[in-house]
Amino acid sequence: MFIKLAPSAAHAAQPELAGTTAVVFDVLRATSTIVTALARGYSKVYPAVDVDEALHIAGSRSHVLAGERGGLKITGFPRGNSPLEFVAGPEKDGAELVLTTSNGTGAVRASSTADRVLLGSVLNARAAARAAVAHGQDIYLVCAGSGGGYSLEDALGAGFVLAEMLKSANLAVEMDDRAAAALCLARCYSHDPLAGLMNSAHGKALVRLGREEDLRWCSQLNMFEIAPVYNGEYITA
Amino acid sequence: MFIKLAPSAAHAAQPELAGTTAVVFDVLRATSTIVTALARGYSKVYPAVDVDEALHIAGSRSHVLAGERGGLKITGFPRGNSPLEFVAGPEKDGAELVLTTSNGTGAVRASSTADRVLLGSVLNARAAARAAVAHGQDIYLVCAGSGGGYSLEDALGAGFVLAEMLKSANLAVEMDDRAAAALCLARCYSHDPLAGLMNSAHGKALVRLGREEDLRWCSQLNMFEIAPVYNGEYITA
Repeated sequence: MFIKLAPSAAHAAQPELAGTTAVVFDVLRATSTIVTALARGYSKVYPAVDVDEALHIAGSRSHVLAGERGGLKITGFPRGNSPLEFVAGPEKDGAELVLTTSNGTGAVRASSTADRVLLGSVLNARAAARAAVAHGQDIYLVCAGSGGGYSLEDALGAGFVLAEMLKSANLAVEMDDRAAAALCLARCYSHDPLAGLMNSAHGKALVRLGREEDLRWCSQLNMFEIAPVYNGEYITA
Repeated sequence: MFIKLAPSAAHAAQPELAGTTAVVFDVLRATSTIVTALARGYSKVYPAVDVDEALHIAGSRSHVLAGERGGLKITGFPRGNSPLEFVAGPEKDGAELVLTTSNGTGAVRASSTADRVLLGSVLNARAAARAAVAHGQDIYLVCAGSGGGYSLEDALGAGFVLAEMLKSANLAVEMDDRAAAALCLARCYSHDPLAGLMNSAHGKALVRLGREEDLRWCSQLNMFEIAPVYNGEYITA
């Protein structure tokens, strides 16, 4: 099994995604938010690439509309992109969520060339790892990154999933240089995932926006045992 | 002091280099070879971008001509790019070397927009760190990378230099996400730098070419106390 890491969705070559299991990471905060929402009772999450698409998907149905740009809730949207807004679960059991974020929801969409698309975060590292190796395919760890560039927190999330994969007995794994580096990140921050998130540029920006509690939430390793799957239209647990 | 890391010379934005001290890394093997040659008695190293330029520089003088492409010695060149070829020092005291390699010598040349250009490697991490912080400028760690992409061994070398910088008392440092990740690499491999080089794709390729001894040589942390400087024409200790 070969494991490869893309530092941003823009780096994930479409032909290389084919035939792989992709695991998409936007640790601060889209995939952490989606994992939280699905774990707490939302039935589906539609990842929209932009505001218009989000409005279109939500338009005809009673979906909950959520999203951010530049870390801030989109004007007119009832919810933002903080996982804390979804911790209590939906008002109506099984409600559906439409989410659009700066990097994460686009990264999920861009990964759909892969045979299977899973969502990873610190919150569900072990479950995502187990689901990723279950089919024996090569694995593409796709970090959403930020504006096409590297994000420490996404590489760290990918590293935690990779570290969980390597705990599987009898798994013969080879990996590229970026995946090997992500594994080091996980080892570096294994006793303090929050420090990794706090050291990232995006983490610092969220703290400046008053969202330190989001970082604390997103840093909880293996809090949920779900491995959300994107089917090309929506994400389910 | 802000510290930034470029994963390959292609990523090092020319405008961002201006006003900084750049430290260039091609751990396997160009900067390790240059550090070794200068520490062992060569007086100057001319970094040539291609074979023609190397021949041109060497043409009129009695320089030692060295280089590789694809990890192999260039046909007709007396020396390749193994540091072990330079360990014994030059035949003539103070001899000058002309070197062209696949990524490293081009990365040195591409960094010349910086105010100062230093050469870093595992071999001279402490000395490079001290020289880098001496002028108080922002620092740009420029990894040569491989074919425009990320190389684990270069990020590891940069991480070792960064770890040495942080030992300086009273140094207030901020860094970007890539530099923070490189620092984790250094911590991950601090007790076994050779393992880091062996885990890299280029390290594995060199082992397949029978160059494992080169990796052992290049993995010796702080073996030399020199911080080579590139003046736009040649490199001196």
